[in-house]
Amino acid sequence: MERTKVVVCGATGMVGQIYVAMLSDHPWFELVGVAASERSAGKQYGDVARWYIQGDIPARARNMTILPCTADAIAATGATLVFSALPSDVAGPVERSLADAGVAVVADTASHRMDADVPLIVPEVNADHLEALSLQRKGGKRGFIVTGPNCSTAGLVLSLKPLQLAFGIRRVIVVTMQALSGAGYAGVPSMAIIDNLIPYIKGEEEKMECETQKMLGSWMDGAFQPANIPVSASCNRVAVLDGHTESVLVELDRPASPEEVESVMRSFQGEPQRLHLPTAPDHPILVRSESDRPQPRLDRLAGEPARARGMAAVVGRVRSDPAFATGIKYTVLSHNTIRGAAGNAVLTAELLAAKDLL
Amino acid sequence: MERTKVVVCGATGMVGQIYVAMLSDHPWFELVGVAASERSAGKQYGDVARWYIQGDIPARARNMTILPCTADAIAATGATLVFSALPSDVAGPVERSLADAGVAVVADTASHRMDADVPLIVPEVNADHLEALSLQRKGGKRGFIVTGPNCSTAGLVLSLKPLQLAFGIRRVIVVTMQALSGAGYAGVPSMAIIDNLIPYIKGEEEKMECETQKMLGSWMDGAFQPANIPVSASCNRVAVLDGHTESVLVELDRPASPEEVESVMRSFQGEPQRLHLPTAPDHPILVRSESDRPQPRLDRLAGEPARARGMAAVVGRVRSDPAFATGIKYTVLSHNTIRGAAGNAVLTAELLAAKDLL
Amino acid sequence: MERTKVVVCGATGMVGQIYVAMLSDHPWFELVGVAASERSAGKQYGDVARWYIQGDIPARARNMTILPCTADAIAATGATLVFSALPSDVAGPVERSLADAGVAVVADTASHRMDADVPLIVPEVNADHLEALSLQRKGGKRGFIVTGPNCSTAGLVLSLKPLQLAFGIRRVIVVTMQALSGAGYAGVPSMAIIDNLIPYIKGEEEKMECETQKMLGSWMDGAFQPANIPVSASCNRVAVLDGHTESVLVELDRPASPEEVESVMRSFQGEPQRLHLPTAPDHPILVRSESDRPQPRLDRLAGEPARARGMAAVVGRVRSDPAFATGIKYTVLSHNTIRGAAGNAVLTAELLAAKDLL
Amino acid sequence: MERTKVVVCGATGMVGQIYVAMLSDHPWFELVGVAASERSAGKQYGDVARWYIQGDIPARARNMTILPCTADAIAATGATLVFSALPSDVAGPVERSLADAGVAVVADTASHRMDADVPLIVPEVNADHLEALSLQRKGGKRGFIVTGPNCSTAGLVLSLKPLQLAFGIRRVIVVTMQALSGAGYAGVPSMAIIDNLIPYIKGEEEKMECETQKMLGSWMDGAFQPANIPVSASCNRVAVLDGHTESVLVELDRPASPEEVESVMRSFQGEPQRLHLPTAPDHPILVRSESDRPQPRLDRLAGEPARARGMAAVVGRVRSDPAFATGIKYTVLSHNTIRGAAGNAVLTAELLAAKDLL
Repeated sequence: MERTKVVVCGATGMVGQIYVAMLSDHPWFELVGVAASERSAGKQYGDVARWYIQGDIPARARNMTILPCTADAIAATGATLVFSALPSDVAGPVERSLADAGVAVVADTASHRMDADVPLIVPEVNADHLEALSLQRKGGKRGFIVTGPNCSTAGLVLSLKPLQLAFGIRRVIVVTMQALSGAGYAGVPSMAIIDNLIPYIKGEEEKMECETQKMLGSWMDGAFQPANIPVSASCNRVAVLDGHTESVLVELDRPASPEEVESVMRSFQGEPQRLHLPTAPDHPILVRSESDRPQPRLDRLAGEPARARGMAAVVGRVRSDPAFATGIKYTVLSHNTIRGAAGNAVLTAELLAAKDLL
Repeated sequence: MERTKVVVCGATGMVGQIYVAMLSDHPWFELVGVAASERSAGKQYGDVARWYIQGDIPARARNMTILPCTADAIAATGATLVFSALPSDVAGPVERSLADAGVAVVADTASHRMDADVPLIVPEVNADHLEALSLQRKGGKRGFIVTGPNCSTAGLVLSLKPLQLAFGIRRVIVVTMQALSGAGYAGVPSMAIIDNLIPYIKGEEEKMECETQKMLGSWMDGAFQPANIPVSASCNRVAVLDGHTESVLVELDRPASPEEVESVMRSFQGEPQRLHLPTAPDHPILVRSESDRPQPRLDRLAGEPARARGMAAVVGRVRSDPAFATGIKYTVLSHNTIRGAAGNAVLTAELLAAKDLL
Repeated sequence: MERTKVVVCGATGMVGQIYVAMLSDHPWFELVGVAASERSAGKQYGDVARWYIQGDIPARARNMTILPCTADAIAATGATLVFSALPSDVAGPVERSLADAGVAVVADTASHRMDADVPLIVPEVNADHLEALSLQRKGGKRGFIVTGPNCSTAGLVLSLKPLQLAFGIRRVIVVTMQALSGAGYAGVPSMAIIDNLIPYIKGEEEKMECETQKMLGSWMDGAFQPANIPVSASCNRVAVLDGHTESVLVELDRPASPEEVESVMRSFQGEPQRLHLPTAPDHPILVRSESDRPQPRLDRLAGEPARARGMAAVVGRVRSDPAFATGIKYTVLSHNTIRGAAGNAVLTAELLAAKDLL
Repeated sequence: MERTKVVVCGATGMVGQIYVAMLSDHPWFELVGVAASERSAGKQYGDVARWYIQGDIPARARNMTILPCTADAIAATGATLVFSALPSDVAGPVERSLADAGVAVVADTASHRMDADVPLIVPEVNADHLEALSLQRKGGKRGFIVTGPNCSTAGLVLSLKPLQLAFGIRRVIVVTMQALSGAGYAGVPSMAIIDNLIPYIKGEEEKMECETQKMLGSWMDGAFQPANIPVSASCNRVAVLDGHTESVLVELDRPASPEEVESVMRSFQGEPQRLHLPTAPDHPILVRSESDRPQPRLDRLAGEPARARGMAAVVGRVRSDPAFATGIKYTVLSHNTIRGAAGNAVLTAELLAAKDLL
């Protein structure tokens, strides 16, 4: 089988580098180009990208000449699929123009997440939302935009989906302790966070609240119907490099014991598992029984097989809540730049490929 | 006025040192002795206490010979008041035996907090609970035990009290991000917490839940009536030296706007302010308007005048909650070894003195 | 006595804020203005300066309108003395133009440190270098520039001076572990330094080597004669907020025991102590006897009286070196934004005032 | 080929776990037992070992019953080789008694490092020192002890050896910035090191000085002749989880340019490379050309192939020293629990096997 040619836009940043690492030996996708801002275009990737990841930059990418993020430049590579990790201030129109030019765009940026015809996908949670692509492709257009959620939403919805299926959800209250990489490499100065935390992340709480409702909702009659589940999010930044930890309280529709909750989480699987997608973790939710797990440094790279490292959400401390008759509390951790960004997008692209939507 | 002679039991630990620092120049109390474990007794305080606080050990304490925590040893100093910062495994019986011997014991340890006749006091919140001392003193006994709450409860109840008074409270959900000093100097290994957090603190959630109910309840007909307020606590340890930060969601009885909530918090005062106690902060709750405060490193030493540094709770991000019709969310920060331990105990002792209960 | 009117240029940055804090209640200097970049000029200081220091911005400064760093704007305030904490890319010409306009400029920036007629001063070390001002003032000019050393040089030369006086110095080898604030508030991203260190600081080693030679040298026959002491510096950045720690090895001219070295350090005093300058620490070098001190968090604010906090260098671990017959090793710590920047400049200005050079 | 049966003594600690991870799939060695203190003996390894390493405990080890560290218990497993990661207070006599009972003991503990007949080995540096085993085996004894250096010495001697061979070494001055794991899991409290560093590690400087001399010396006429190279070490603990960074200054016998130094380091190989030992890195020293490397978080796991991760020393910033005519400065980093402990011991055992010394 010939591999689909892909380009990463925004390839020099931290998430861009994870794309490059994940795609440098991907069985279905062939990385044929890296694109970035005008400032970097024309230079060699290895000269521009300060490589943040342990180990060295993949040999294949090192010598690539950085492209501008234009439809022409991407067309010249033969790529039909683009992963977008562009900065939020430029992502919107660039992604739109690429889609208009016939490119399949899988974005982990915020610009189009809440668009009426753009699916917001965690493949295990709402693969059926891809039906919305028929709206985007009306009139025979090839290009489209698919997005993934904010990094703090990804782990949350993964953990909520089996509860919604098994018991129904009445209300969600989540407090996050988010990693530094979520703000980008230079996003949080060290002077701001050592011996400290910051109880605020701009726009994050609103994103978590509405994205969760969209993703747990349905695509019906040609429109997204958000789930009728009130969500309250409070977001904090802590001195952790990678891995968002979240204290979650769910008021269920029907009572369930912690054991029942753990059980439906452990056995949860979605389309990626059924389709045996290359980056799919065997179990999208791992439930740990130790009293003090998950912990970001120990658990953020969870997920088997090796290609799915960082793709599993890890849940622990499942217990009944004393303030709600049908309340369940737990802690969920997921890797913010893998499951919360690049990894989720690669898995989404695999889903598109498996469903013949590319 | 002659100052009351006091001894600190458990004086070598981290909280013990804060007592020593606060009492080395106190206008009402005279530090006449430091007591610790049998292992340390007989040695010089300056030789045993590894001084954790910036600056040097107070000259007065440095040369004191460490006493054993026995009624005889304390009686020999002339002290009638003891502050207990003993380790939890020995605190209970020692405190009891001192009280039985006629000493007034103000403890920040957990052993007697939930006893039926022991007041659990944050002076601004429930000074009236001191009436329970009449039960302890029945039959003319002089000694008694008064306690302060767990370090993570102190800031919470301070912030809740004005809401209870003004609007009524239906339910409380709190997620903590607690400082390392709360576990004692060697409590959390650096290998456990750098680039990490721990989503669990043993026994902490239960303490926060029942202590809050006791403190927001009443003393009536010779017994404590806990408040009928469900409290759900989730406790996390983060890489911060001092200062517990808490994301709080309160379902009120009556609706209130964020401005109304800020207003009742800002104007809140209690007995310590009315009585002008030496360690009382002018305002026990400071409300900040910046979007990203309170932060532990910047705000943990809040409180005026100078003697009250670390005694004010700092609140920020007051906002309506999307998941409850009468929900209010905010972040509260308080210094765990000052307001959450030694400082609160000193203020409690001042309250006892002002009310002629010593 | 009327106080000298002063303006701080570069007042919004981290060092600028320390100036503002130190000058808000200074007995000899009156802060009459704060100046910063064109971008900030015209706005209120309290609105622009993100206050990095524990506690709140001084009331006096909060409402000041930020001035541009021009001679006219400064003249309009009546100020005759300017402290410069300007960014290195603009400091040079601005400082020169202010001096040309008749203003006394005390700078902690690098631009003019090695100029042939500009004294590079740590007041305890080389107050006599101020004689070079006669060169700058030739022809009756009032204005001049005086500078202070790089933050990592300040503590080093303080500790070397008594050794030079007592034993002579043949060679110096220093390895630094420098704090984050030395790079400015946003200088080191948290992603770069948590669970990490950076073995390089641009230009720092060269600065330490030549500045030390200039400061330990002499002013003779109208020119600076650098000391003939080879200096080897290796500079590292570590995850510490404030306080530069340095492992120093000195090959002495004459052998000396660790006790002798400690003794000359402890008794060392300079002009600031003899003149009782307000910001002078009683002892510019504190020698600690514990095996594991100095430590930045515990010792960076050393210095008595209160106004001199952060002005004392703290030395520990003085011992003989096994690799040199006359080698002595020790660790020295000093506060990089106080003794290494703003505090040293204020002390220098006090020295100028006491010598009637303003 | 049948694999040699091995047991790890001290298997529950941090270094012990690295042994278990490295030996769980080793081509030459078969892990047949884990041994630890009397307190743990008899329990299951998976229940006792708090697994500190990312990922889960190897399935093979999880269910092993912990043995006591006695010759009988080890003999019962059929093991003829023991890796010792015992705590320093018990290691000495246990290792001796195992050797006396005929077991080959490879230890990374300090007890026997300076013994007159015990080789202290970094396989690339002084494989020839294994000749000393003939002394231990005199009289036909089978058992013996071989040791590896202190974790901070390992990287240093690796980087020095090619310089000694090519240019001769007159003097070595090294300042370390050592990782927390070097002190064991609970060795450094978080309260001691966040926003801080500790300029002292007990006994470390002496070890680095004399071990380096022993290892760079020779085995001649039945005795170790230490190299006549003065070594001055200053040791610091910094807030880094793994990876010791060292600022090194070497006075060479003959002048050499930085390029020549880099060249001899890059091309350096030893017995492990010539013998193609399984855990040998292709290049024991990697020289990086970036101005700000090596950095512990990015470089500590250097070494190819995969089995040799953490076995390469990474050198950077090679430059001439201004204080010595033939001085060279550089920074060297090596992984303290792999190359500085377990990994070096496994490589040493491979060397013993390849030389038919087991």
